[in-house]
Amino acid sequence: MPIFSPFNFNYKVMFKPEIYSARRQKLKELLSDGLVLLLGNTDVPMNYADNTYHFRQDSNFLYYFGLDFQGLAGLIDINRGNDMLFGDDVDIEDIIWMGPQVSLKENAAKVGCTQTAPFKELFNEITKAINAGRKIHFLPPYRAENKLLLHELLGIHPAKLNEYRSLDLVKAVIAQREVKEAGEIEEIKKACATGYNMHLAAMKMAHPGCWEQTIAGTMEGIAKAQGASASFPIILSQHGETLHNHSHSGYLEEGRLMLVDAGAESLSHYASDFTRTTPVGGKFTQQQREIYEIVLAANNYTTAHVKAGITYQSAHLKAAEVIAGGLKQLGLMKGDVQEAVKAGAHALFFPHGLGHMMGLDVHDMEDLGQIHVGYDEEIRPIDQFGTAYLRLGKRLKPGFVITNEPGIYFIPALIDKWKAEKINTDFIDFGKLEAYRNFGGIRLEDDLLVTESGCELLGERIPITPEEIDTSVNKK
Amino acid sequence: MPIFSPFNFNYKVMFKPEIYSARRQKLKELLSDGLVLLLGNTDVPMNYADNTYHFRQDSNFLYYFGLDFQGLAGLIDINRGNDMLFGDDVDIEDIIWMGPQVSLKENAAKVGCTQTAPFKELFNEITKAINAGRKIHFLPPYRAENKLLLHELLGIHPAKLNEYRSLDLVKAVIAQREVKEAGEIEEIKKACATGYNMHLAAMKMAHPGCWEQTIAGTMEGIAKAQGASASFPIILSQHGETLHNHSHSGYLEEGRLMLVDAGAESLSHYASDFTRTTPVGGKFTQQQREIYEIVLAANNYTTAHVKAGITYQSAHLKAAEVIAGGLKQLGLMKGDVQEAVKAGAHALFFPHGLGHMMGLDVHDMEDLGQIHVGYDEEIRPIDQFGTAYLRLGKRLKPGFVITNEPGIYFIPALIDKWKAEKINTDFIDFGKLEAYRNFGGIRLEDDLLVTESGCELLGERIPITPEEIDTSVNKK
Repeated sequence: MPIFSPFNFNYKVMFKPEIYSARRQKLKELLSDGLVLLLGNTDVPMNYADNTYHFRQDSNFLYYFGLDFQGLAGLIDINRGNDMLFGDDVDIEDIIWMGPQVSLKENAAKVGCTQTAPFKELFNEITKAINAGRKIHFLPPYRAENKLLLHELLGIHPAKLNEYRSLDLVKAVIAQREVKEAGEIEEIKKACATGYNMHLAAMKMAHPGCWEQTIAGTMEGIAKAQGASASFPIILSQHGETLHNHSHSGYLEEGRLMLVDAGAESLSHYASDFTRTTPVGGKFTQQQREIYEIVLAANNYTTAHVKAGITYQSAHLKAAEVIAGGLKQLGLMKGDVQEAVKAGAHALFFPHGLGHMMGLDVHDMEDLGQIHVGYDEEIRPIDQFGTAYLRLGKRLKPGFVITNEPGIYFIPALIDKWKAEKINTDFIDFGKLEAYRNFGGIRLEDDLLVTESGCELLGERIPITPEEIDTSVNKK
Repeated sequence: MPIFSPFNFNYKVMFKPEIYSARRQKLKELLSDGLVLLLGNTDVPMNYADNTYHFRQDSNFLYYFGLDFQGLAGLIDINRGNDMLFGDDVDIEDIIWMGPQVSLKENAAKVGCTQTAPFKELFNEITKAINAGRKIHFLPPYRAENKLLLHELLGIHPAKLNEYRSLDLVKAVIAQREVKEAGEIEEIKKACATGYNMHLAAMKMAHPGCWEQTIAGTMEGIAKAQGASASFPIILSQHGETLHNHSHSGYLEEGRLMLVDAGAESLSHYASDFTRTTPVGGKFTQQQREIYEIVLAANNYTTAHVKAGITYQSAHLKAAEVIAGGLKQLGLMKGDVQEAVKAGAHALFFPHGLGHMMGLDVHDMEDLGQIHVGYDEEIRPIDQFGTAYLRLGKRLKPGFVITNEPGIYFIPALIDKWKAEKINTDFIDFGKLEAYRNFGGIRLEDDLLVTESGCELLGERIPITPEEIDTSVNKK
């Protein structure tokens, strides 16, 4: 590499200018007054300033201003109704190195914005507004660079910025972004198509002796070759019960289950998110298959019953009942299934939520606060181990895109804790559990579009029945 | 993806504890007094706090403390001779989710460090040292998170931190890291082996109609499957003359040249960095081949003449002479070759430096300041367009690892500027240049280990002759 740093001046815009103008117009209608400040992201150094990670624009900025390069900020004036984009044009010297460039003005036109100004003008605009006593709405920052910038712009200590973020703006953005437009769904489907290819490649490699990293790296390569990147760091593990496992240092072993949780980010930065659990070599043991069929039943039950109007909290609890019912048949749980779920006994095996929103972020809008994204005045979180981790509880609307990801895990540390503390002993047969200590974990995840009458599976369904999986692993 | 964020607790250490102890001991000998503070890196959010980029440890921290996970800081006491590691152990709740973990104490032992403490103790240690009037040596921070942390620790404004960094420490670190140990060279060779595979894959795909991103993504996938990642964002372009080009949105066209500048980062985070320029379809036109042979001659000349004791500034100027000589034979340059290079006329075609240091960073130690890495009291930068961009000028020592990357480019904006401003008209035939306006650019880059008597090419040489390239492109 000879001289300078990468410069991301990717000025392709995904949707028509009217789309972005309409989104900003809607936002103006949802708020009563003040200015909305939306900061774009900047390049982040890996190991020195000029060697940066791949650029990822802020999702809120992308949604309202569409431009996918660094060094930008948008200002939406609720009272006057105008939108401004701040950023710097490339100077003449740089053009020698970078070839002809498009001006900020031309780029702004692509997202329906006519007013542009150099970045430093943002400081003047904000100062003017503050001096005039006007409200500046901003979202909670997650990047250290933007914390420093907001501190400079607003004089709020970096550690206090989240307290001063605009809850009105948070709620307005969620109200808009949670219902996906037709164009957005098309983009999500592209991410799903790449996710499909990633998972099929993983299945094909699921043979004894294969290095986990070879599979994870190959999947990332497919994500990069067909879209922007993976939508989150790939989880690929023969210890599916270790929910945090991001190490790929092992080699596949006969008799183990390979859990792969991975999705793609499309070129337009929409996400997919799928999980499949594949027996190494393609064939389940009897014990594995029995547990697998329960998880598959919970997944299928959810897809069959999700529709606009139900709450996802209720769907989560129904899936928990399917799991508890299946485990009861195997003798691992006992007693009344509904009582067991009420008591939270299923959470020993299914200790996480059924799913979350998905869109421009794989956990859509998580930067805005999960409580505001997943819950509302009607549906509040349930404070019980397991269900407490459900990210999405509220009533579903047509146009929501959500994940459906039940799982069953055998977590030795958790089993030992419950056994020692005699938790839910009425519903769990700890003796029978011993034979499952080294089982691992199974999760099966699909992406759903909620409609009036039901839901639509997004993308071609990745092989999921034991027979389909065997075929995919052993296809030449 | 069900619940939490990725947690990088990769506690594999590349070298033996004695290696790290010895490096810290050497550093103590190079400095006279005070405390050396080395901050590790933290995870960086992509689009929300819990969705992070792949973790990249700080290279200086890796060199002295070896641990490859986030949330650490090291303190080396020059006067008392002891080393401390600060970081937090995983708590019991996390172990349920993450499986059994290794303690900081055990991890510290792997790098020969016996003293550990919770991260917050760092604040006490630093405050104690400041109150005792002791010098705190720190390196210039490049991550915003570490700027905020240093601001908190030392009370220095984030924008002023670079002014207060310790130049003594910068020089001591460079003196150590610039001469590679045998174990480091082995790691660099692993990165070279992956780089070889990346470039071979690119050549094989260099056929008309292929989407550039498919090739770049496939290369990244190989880097991820065989090592840690690509060592920098891949440059892949049919406009090699646009030195900043990181867009991969085009499709390969018959008759164009595909310039690929890419390298791998090994699992231990050592870099490789190679450039090849491949004609789409594998066969050069006569015009392309004539220019290619000049660049290849400059590359070969450098490899044949580099050895300990010469300055890389002189090697750069010699390569410039090879290029100017070749272009004179084609009639694009004229007059005396040495005079032309003295006047900087070659820089119209070769406007960047011959190479840079390479090691834990692809531009090794660039975070410490290029002027200190590449130059010293003896050899100062030459302030002339082109040569001014040479990152490495100083006298070479055995154990230096450097890149050798001459190039020839036809940059329309630069040609027009020189023509209009009548720059170096004695040495350039602007009329003849017209036929090359749409040529693009060629660069050929290898990695070299400097030895007493010459240099060693690192890794198997990637196909470089026109014949080898044709074979690689058209291999079935």
